[in-house]
Amino acid sequence: MHYALLNTMREIIIVGHTSRTDPNFSLNDLPGSGGRIDILCRCVNSALFLSHDLRRDVDIYLILQGPPRPPVTVKFSGEKVRYLNPDERSSGSLIKKALEVNPGPRWRESTPGVCARQGGLDELLQDLMSGENKSLFYLREDGTDIRDAFVNTVPDNVVFLLGDHMGMTPEEEAILMNAGAGILHVGPLSLHADHCIILVNNEMDRAAHR
Amino acid sequence: MHYALLNTMREIIIVGHTSRTDPNFSLNDLPGSGGRIDILCRCVNSALFLSHDLRRDVDIYLILQGPPRPPVTVKFSGEKVRYLNPDERSSGSLIKKALEVNPGPRWRESTPGVCARQGGLDELLQDLMSGENKSLFYLREDGTDIRDAFVNTVPDNVVFLLGDHMGMTPEEEAILMNAGAGILHVGPLSLHADHCIILVNNEMDRAAHR
Repeated sequence: MHYALLNTMREIIIVGHTSRTDPNFSLNDLPGSGGRIDILCRCVNSALFLSHDLRRDVDIYLILQGPPRPPVTVKFSGEKVRYLNPDERSSGSLIKKALEVNPGPRWRESTPGVCARQGGLDELLQDLMSGENKSLFYLREDGTDIRDAFVNTVPDNVVFLLGDHMGMTPEEEAILMNAGAGILHVGPLSLHADHCIILVNNEMDRAAHR
Repeated sequence: MHYALLNTMREIIIVGHTSRTDPNFSLNDLPGSGGRIDILCRCVNSALFLSHDLRRDVDIYLILQGPPRPPVTVKFSGEKVRYLNPDERSSGSLIKKALEVNPGPRWRESTPGVCARQGGLDELLQDLMSGENKSLFYLREDGTDIRDAFVNTVPDNVVFLLGDHMGMTPEEEAILMNAGAGILHVGPLSLHADHCIILVNNEMDRAAHR
């Protein structure tokens, strides 16, 4: 089966609890000056890159909750993104450009396939989960093994949500539970969010090709 | 089972065909000035990081084959490494320090848990595969599915080898076949080396905890 023929959609959400919401961070010090925005940069790579291609059916949403004006959401569309290379500085630079546009209440595109707006998890889930038939999954160590989740049926449209190095707050978990999220884990050890995304993509690749 | 109690060893080898063998590259431009050394930086992260810990039972070897004096091998020991953070600049900085020591024919430590020497794949495999009971696996798209490889038996000591964006040359593949390498794949799509390492680690984590 050719990859481009798959008529399904994967959306990935990662919450950066301390990641800066203005462009005043240095590409030479993403972890420090960006409030661990390096984590989100690696998540963009994990979500979108294939060996010599991009995953055209994956979008990733970065929810930035650090100073000075949280929350801001930055979206990378695998179908439309340009100027993205695998290194952290590359995604960091595109995030910085998205924040330079001074995000308002509506999505505003900064470079092809990258846009940003004010608003956080609540608004995003309302948008993503309304209307269309989508399945929402939250990655947490005590969930169901992802290898058991998609053995018999594979939802056409899936939304996966992950926390950063701080996990998710009880308030955020309440939003997820309200939205009907299933809870999944990816293996016996606790891993970084960008590593979890690799495992999620692999599981969905395998399910789609079964 | 507590992770630290596992009495096994994983070794990972990644070949960087164009990666510089002296420290004259910029941490602000790892892909360009380092000859795609950014790929190896991400492999170090994939090999060694757990959520709030390091994988103490994993070593990773970076075989640098770019100018000016190839080959040089840099080793990161998960048990001993210090000053390593998850961002690319951090592993890039430790690789740079390893090359500043001007590697000779014997391993020379530059920072705790990081050392380098002259020599490439042939010498490394001779060292790693002699004496001890180890199983060698080469990651290639046409191999056996890794999920089928460790269902019944899990070797105590495993060595996984991966190519960079250029794959492996026929000469390198001949060395691997001579060393008795099994060929494995990690899924239906062709992925970056650092993504493959995540999948290998996950498979071995699962096998160890079965």
